[in-house]
Amino acid sequence: MRQALPARPSCAYLRAMTHARFTPLVQSLPATVPFVGPETQVRQRGVDFRARLGANESVFGPSPRAVAAMQAAAAEVWMYGDAESHDLRHALAQRHGVQPQNVLVGEGIDGLLGNLVRLTVAPGDAVVTSDGAYPTFNYHVTGHGGALHKVPFRDDHEDPAALFAKAREVGAKLVYLSNPDNPMGSWHSGSDILAAMADLPEDTLLVLDEAYVECAPRGTAVAVAPDDPRLIRMRTFSKVYGMAGARVGYALAAPELIAAFDKVRNHFGMNRIGQAGALAALADDDWLGQVQRDIAAARDRIGAIAAENGLSALPSATNFVAVDCGRDADFAKAMVDNLVELGVFVRMPFSTPQNRCIRISCGTAADLDILAETLPQALAAARG
Amino acid sequence: MRQALPARPSCAYLRAMTHARFTPLVQSLPATVPFVGPETQVRQRGVDFRARLGANESVFGPSPRAVAAMQAAAAEVWMYGDAESHDLRHALAQRHGVQPQNVLVGEGIDGLLGNLVRLTVAPGDAVVTSDGAYPTFNYHVTGHGGALHKVPFRDDHEDPAALFAKAREVGAKLVYLSNPDNPMGSWHSGSDILAAMADLPEDTLLVLDEAYVECAPRGTAVAVAPDDPRLIRMRTFSKVYGMAGARVGYALAAPELIAAFDKVRNHFGMNRIGQAGALAALADDDWLGQVQRDIAAARDRIGAIAAENGLSALPSATNFVAVDCGRDADFAKAMVDNLVELGVFVRMPFSTPQNRCIRISCGTAADLDILAETLPQALAAARG
Repeated sequence: MRQALPARPSCAYLRAMTHARFTPLVQSLPATVPFVGPETQVRQRGVDFRARLGANESVFGPSPRAVAAMQAAAAEVWMYGDAESHDLRHALAQRHGVQPQNVLVGEGIDGLLGNLVRLTVAPGDAVVTSDGAYPTFNYHVTGHGGALHKVPFRDDHEDPAALFAKAREVGAKLVYLSNPDNPMGSWHSGSDILAAMADLPEDTLLVLDEAYVECAPRGTAVAVAPDDPRLIRMRTFSKVYGMAGARVGYALAAPELIAAFDKVRNHFGMNRIGQAGALAALADDDWLGQVQRDIAAARDRIGAIAAENGLSALPSATNFVAVDCGRDADFAKAMVDNLVELGVFVRMPFSTPQNRCIRISCGTAADLDILAETLPQALAAARG
Repeated sequence: MRQALPARPSCAYLRAMTHARFTPLVQSLPATVPFVGPETQVRQRGVDFRARLGANESVFGPSPRAVAAMQAAAAEVWMYGDAESHDLRHALAQRHGVQPQNVLVGEGIDGLLGNLVRLTVAPGDAVVTSDGAYPTFNYHVTGHGGALHKVPFRDDHEDPAALFAKAREVGAKLVYLSNPDNPMGSWHSGSDILAAMADLPEDTLLVLDEAYVECAPRGTAVAVAPDDPRLIRMRTFSKVYGMAGARVGYALAAPELIAAFDKVRNHFGMNRIGQAGALAALADDDWLGQVQRDIAAARDRIGAIAAENGLSALPSATNFVAVDCGRDADFAKAMVDNLVELGVFVRMPFSTPQNRCIRISCGTAADLDILAETLPQALAAARG
């Protein structure tokens, strides 16, 4: 079947030609990726993890009703998914007391962020985020040629006032704020964020990532008018709803902004099984409540395990806990490496001084037994 | 929960502000979408279709092994999918006799085309395609500011020589060719395409969309060296493999080109259930063979039904048949509308003179019984 090229050019020539095919922007982009996935680490290690607590997935899984809906949808997967995600969008609108025109369903928050950046950020445009906040947002901004400006965390919290002041200073198109935040698990009340938004520049759109908000105390979600043009909120079925692998996220915003996504999104990009699963998951509040309780209990247990080892867990409104290892980034890195070596997948923050911590996702009781068993060993080896 | 905006600006002001948020390119884009989906039509009609034969899906469904794999994966969907699609990529490499570095798995061909255009087409760059070929490719090109140049079909076939000559004339970054083609179902032999590629300009990348190639006679797939830098081939699990709703496509190309996608793709964008299903589907050649036979039989039956009604079906190497209605586009449009009205979802080509045809996807025996029943009525009504 294989045939040689008709006239075979040199390898160096081919590489140069391939390079020249890319846009100047793409040629300027680094080849790095935002994250190394756990499967990649498992292949490198040659052995599976004993506990998968590094990606803020929900080990408690999706609602059994969602699983059943996905299994039923598998037999109908020969059909493209509904390009409008009509049923899911209407159910979400009802849940949030908004109109369907305020809701956009997309391929996870990652996909929605990518399209949002594409819509709003031209090369050279300024964008503001926190130093150490979600790397995939930064990846999209850089990928579209935006200029990132970073604001430090303040006392392990993102700092809305400083973010919005920086946005004003640099004339930002977008300012990114996660609440609750990743990787520290800290949070602000929705009313505090709303108050800070009084100083949001008129030309800046606030990207409020509420991926973890269902793990947070009441009042953490920001309460704004559905058509408020100052912000877009991002939500997901990947966290509390336990469907990270299904790739279903959604955005809440003014209709004009939601409608603009139709100019760039993949209209038939939503997988049919994920749509069906999310719709069923949304209808199962009992399961949601159970997972919320499981997460709260797991956070407490991680805090207790940390304390038993002389470490302090930070308060968390998410499905993970940042554990302060009490020293510098090298020490935390050693802790992460040691835990991974012992079969426990965890990660850590990227930026100083948050990178004194390691980040542990909530696990089952069995997962946390393994954590309790391995943490002292990891600590001893790191102190070694 | 709802609060008014702190200082409520006028509606017109809000709209203008929202508009100003978008990049100049996005502001210039039309609000149109490439396709209206069948679910949207069903909601407009208020009644389900009796036969869904308009989107070139495979009514024969996925392999039962793929369904079982997806159902098993549903319970594990709390985990993100493998960012490298390692197992699927390796299986595809083995199937095609290439290296895993030659293979990229993505969210359907639509997603892969979008990323390819983003990688290669800067605003103003020229791109060549056939007039009436895949609208979603055009959507991506326009969406990234590319300048589309269109070449007519020749005797209801895409015209590689004319496409490549136009690419040379306009200095195209990309030239799109589907083989077999959509919407006519015609095809060229792989060796004819390879011969035509001798005139492909050095600076132009050929995007060879082989979405339907598993429905085509042997020798339709182009046989090139795996590292040939002149082209990228697109394949999918949406057609013969019956998994359109799972959103799994892949590209075959030189490693340098495949690697570049890592600069822009959503690394965790592949849904886990689709990965599992595709891997199982790929291993079930018996099912593939059965579907190929079912498709061939359905094509014959559509041809026979057309002939019974005095219409002529075009030869097809795909899972659909273009039926020449023997008059103009208005007549074909009336036929489509009448069939839709009678509960049979079909579509038609966009461009003259292909739009004298209607496009009917292969159906089950029951589907085609409904087609046989409704086509004479649609025809009678169109002839008025």
